[in-house]
Amino acid sequence: MTDTIISSASKDVILGFERPFVIIGERINPTGRKLLAAEMKAGDFSRVEADALAQVAAGAHVLDINAGIPLADEPALMAQAIRLVQSLTDVPLSIDSSVFEALQAGLEAYQGKALLNSVTGEDERLERVLPLVKKYGAAVVAICNDDNGISNDINVRFEVARKIVNRAADHGIPACDVVVDPLVMPVGAMADAAMQVLELIRRLRSELKVNTTCGASNISFGLPNRHGLNPAFISMAIGAGMTSAITNPLDTALMQAVRGADVLMNHDPQCAHWIAAYREPAPGGERGGRRGGRRRRTVKTQTAD
Amino acid sequence: MTDTIISSASKDVILGFERPFVIIGERINPTGRKLLAAEMKAGDFSRVEADALAQVAAGAHVLDINAGIPLADEPALMAQAIRLVQSLTDVPLSIDSSVFEALQAGLEAYQGKALLNSVTGEDERLERVLPLVKKYGAAVVAICNDDNGISNDINVRFEVARKIVNRAADHGIPACDVVVDPLVMPVGAMADAAMQVLELIRRLRSELKVNTTCGASNISFGLPNRHGLNPAFISMAIGAGMTSAITNPLDTALMQAVRGADVLMNHDPQCAHWIAAYREPAPGGERGGRRGGRRRRTVKTQTAD
Repeated sequence: MTDTIISSASKDVILGFERPFVIIGERINPTGRKLLAAEMKAGDFSRVEADALAQVAAGAHVLDINAGIPLADEPALMAQAIRLVQSLTDVPLSIDSSVFEALQAGLEAYQGKALLNSVTGEDERLERVLPLVKKYGAAVVAICNDDNGISNDINVRFEVARKIVNRAADHGIPACDVVVDPLVMPVGAMADAAMQVLELIRRLRSELKVNTTCGASNISFGLPNRHGLNPAFISMAIGAGMTSAITNPLDTALMQAVRGADVLMNHDPQCAHWIAAYREPAPGGERGGRRGGRRRRTVKTQTAD
Repeated sequence: MTDTIISSASKDVILGFERPFVIIGERINPTGRKLLAAEMKAGDFSRVEADALAQVAAGAHVLDINAGIPLADEPALMAQAIRLVQSLTDVPLSIDSSVFEALQAGLEAYQGKALLNSVTGEDERLERVLPLVKKYGAAVVAICNDDNGISNDINVRFEVARKIVNRAADHGIPACDVVVDPLVMPVGAMADAAMQVLELIRRLRSELKVNTTCGASNISFGLPNRHGLNPAFISMAIGAGMTSAITNPLDTALMQAVRGADVLMNHDPQCAHWIAAYREPAPGGERGGRRGGRRRRTVKTQTAD
């Protein structure tokens, strides 16, 4: 039983083996979003605001904030984005950068216990980032690559995870505050990518006893109908024990798979969340939810002719 | 490595741990289908014909044939349905009845190696059905209930499966010709139903080394948006090692989850089946498939603004 608590000023979110799956909304990230990048660089955060509200409305439990824009003042943009999003919503945030100063500026601006995204097994990075995690009392995403890059051997990736957990302990950071990202590789490029990462998730849970997260949609990179493949992967990953993902909460098929997996894992008591999201409208009454109404047309019993 | 071969006069289908998931089309079953029941009883098999063709077109690898109609001559109807469906398609069939004489008539009419559906752990049923399986060289679905009914304890259900496998061996039927149905209970009525059956699937595979099948859609009985929950379950069940299911191939979301799980399990070399089913149309050229064309509108990359 490992609980990772992250929080805003007023709200806790807990990642844990016996808890509902945690969705970390990935949308606030200018990487590959030219328009968002240009706007943020020019000081226009209107899209950040809209993305924050839309993701929370769609069911995100945590929002990832990335301000990585070439030739921009990333630490300043990160702090600004953090303050803005915290003024709009009470969900905890994940502070996402590969730039040390941006992580530091984000933590400085943040109210609550953040999820710092991320540290790797690279020695130099460990020695810079872990003291920051400790100083601000944050949790941290630990990515399973090191100075040798990303190994295709899950035993090597497992040992990188173990190294980070041990090094964190040396800095006074408990294992429950390390959320391991096993690294999801595209199944179109590496045929056993899913089987490997599912096995690694199981081992991280049973042997290292840590919570896990991942960029789930990487699995389908390069294939057609990515939005059809991602839900199958996330269901299997939750079945294998993954406890959170950095993904797009606006993808309704993916969110349905996550809610379904919560029901199946017995993490949705009385199926209350499922029923609230998808119940059919009462005759002449209110609809049970936007999606509930829309789905009704396609729900049939199997025995109908 | 356990391969269960079933066949028609001209085609083999193989259930196995390292093979693509096998879909057994469930539609030809008058239980709860009043119109189909009335038509079959009156000798009108036009709907059986249409259901057979539609299911094969949708990707069913095997078709289940059930002729259980109250006050009808079930053995005669079963034989007629078997002959008709075998004249229309080359997929192997599952002969489905709780009536011994209907199983016998179905096997007598069938060309190839059928899947007999089913035997339970009830002693009287074992002693009647297993000699039939042996005589006709069929494979058999073994359902994990016995004279004490269906146990909520998966250890008991595992032992029922073991008993059936052992009893089959006594009759000269190898374990590879026994396909165990662990019994999927509704998660709305029993909160840990999915977790239990997934654990049972893992044990049936690792300890008893048998192939498995189930009525997958039972999981969602009584809940709203059943067609949204079933794909999450089937993905998780395939991830746990289930090798076939008796289900509705006309459910496109379910079939997408199965095809996706095949990719993720590395049972779809070069993702060829996935790409054939969902590739986007070439500019000005042919569409890659009906579903490929339809999906295109909803496929977006995650990085788009």
